[in-house]
Amino acid sequence: MNNNRPIGIFDSGVGGITVFKEIRKYLPYENLIYFGDTKHNPYGSKSKDTVTRLSTENVQFLLRKNVKYVVIACNTASALSLHLLRKFYTVPMIGVVDTGAKAAIETTKNGKIGVIGTRATIDSGAYLRALLKLDPKLKIKSLACPLFVPLVEEGWSNSKVAELTAFEYLKVFRKIKADTLVLGCTHYPFLKPVIVKILKNTRLIDSATETAKAVKKELEQKSLIREKKTRPTCTFYVTDAPERFKKIGSSFLGYDIGQVKLVEVE
Amino acid sequence: MNNNRPIGIFDSGVGGITVFKEIRKYLPYENLIYFGDTKHNPYGSKSKDTVTRLSTENVQFLLRKNVKYVVIACNTASALSLHLLRKFYTVPMIGVVDTGAKAAIETTKNGKIGVIGTRATIDSGAYLRALLKLDPKLKIKSLACPLFVPLVEEGWSNSKVAELTAFEYLKVFRKIKADTLVLGCTHYPFLKPVIVKILKNTRLIDSATETAKAVKKELEQKSLIREKKTRPTCTFYVTDAPERFKKIGSSFLGYDIGQVKLVEVE
Repeated sequence: MNNNRPIGIFDSGVGGITVFKEIRKYLPYENLIYFGDTKHNPYGSKSKDTVTRLSTENVQFLLRKNVKYVVIACNTASALSLHLLRKFYTVPMIGVVDTGAKAAIETTKNGKIGVIGTRATIDSGAYLRALLKLDPKLKIKSLACPLFVPLVEEGWSNSKVAELTAFEYLKVFRKIKADTLVLGCTHYPFLKPVIVKILKNTRLIDSATETAKAVKKELEQKSLIREKKTRPTCTFYVTDAPERFKKIGSSFLGYDIGQVKLVEVE
Repeated sequence: MNNNRPIGIFDSGVGGITVFKEIRKYLPYENLIYFGDTKHNPYGSKSKDTVTRLSTENVQFLLRKNVKYVVIACNTASALSLHLLRKFYTVPMIGVVDTGAKAAIETTKNGKIGVIGTRATIDSGAYLRALLKLDPKLKIKSLACPLFVPLVEEGWSNSKVAELTAFEYLKVFRKIKADTLVLGCTHYPFLKPVIVKILKNTRLIDSATETAKAVKKELEQKSLIREKKTRPTCTFYVTDAPERFKKIGSSFLGYDIGQVKLVEVE
């Protein structure tokens, strides 16, 4: 096995770049390919069949790029399609939902777990299923927080509006005394300071960080870690509007991500 | 000319149903076809080429349904593609941007106009161009308000969060003393009560209402008004997730919209 092969990460858009960032942190010598299906973004409002068809095309694109591992950074694709993709392909795969759920279970002491995410992620019931599969006795409260993504994208993460919004959304988790809260959306970690103020005694689970840790662990177990300790290459592909991706992606990462390549996958 | 032919309305999703609603109000006897390209929703983050290609396909679908008139209820498509579509097709067409701009100019007394919309609509500069084309001496301030759509969709239009958010966004229009504000997004009319509190002396332009009025006027001028005063048919087509469209569409209109048909247009 050639360990020099890249890790492939796909998302429906630019949000998964927070997962990319964490993987860079935990695995600084790995070559990375990020694929954003911006033409079909967001997946959240699409049917299961469509999401699975698109996810399949994304995996095939990454396989043509000779990846050794596939990370599904999109909550919706991870929720709706990971189990099917694993049946079709032999390449090892991981999704943000399973890793987030696993970390929550390792963290909770009272068995009361909260999950927040976009409307699509919550409606899919993916975290609920993943958590209950691991422990059917858990008490779980899931809540969609559709205002959180635009709050972050506005740069209002530390504003009064964010505080008031977070208070409205999160009070239910105080009521049920959840000791663990899964941030089931790639944007939400930016709101940690505000969330911590409202849920003082609740442990927050960041799916992006947990995914990066899990990828590292699995690569080590499978002896797939790149041996060369030279500067790796990171390449970005999108299916539409590369300039927009470059702008938002660079701002998320805090450095210029360079050329973003436009590709067709259908 | 058979005036019994339907009016075709297209949008990238369900938002344009507010335009549908206004057209129903102003033209209660017209047969209507609503086409929502939910598979590619939203258009806002897509490139001009992609939006134009998708819009062309949408018009062709409506022409196959024998429409006598095309209404572009999508701000992005209206902004980026209307002028090109008018070159390609002989069917009369209207877009929400031009009608909103025209109404604003007829309303303003001090020549200071504000425009609010989604990030995509504002970044496209469409309202700015449409307004300046009609009167180059206007003073215009455009502002994206990305939190407004999720606020409306959360049912928080009359909440404290909405008030605080609207205050943050709209204070700039008080500062420049705009006497007219264009609501350049199909969701924004739901926030009128909150906006009016902050901008007491500003006239609000609702593009959906203005579009419906303009459609009526043009149909009258072209003698295209349906003569039969019997109950018209309204049909809904989407390119993905018809059940979701049915649910949100029915809630927007306040009645069950019946069957939503799934079609392929590519």
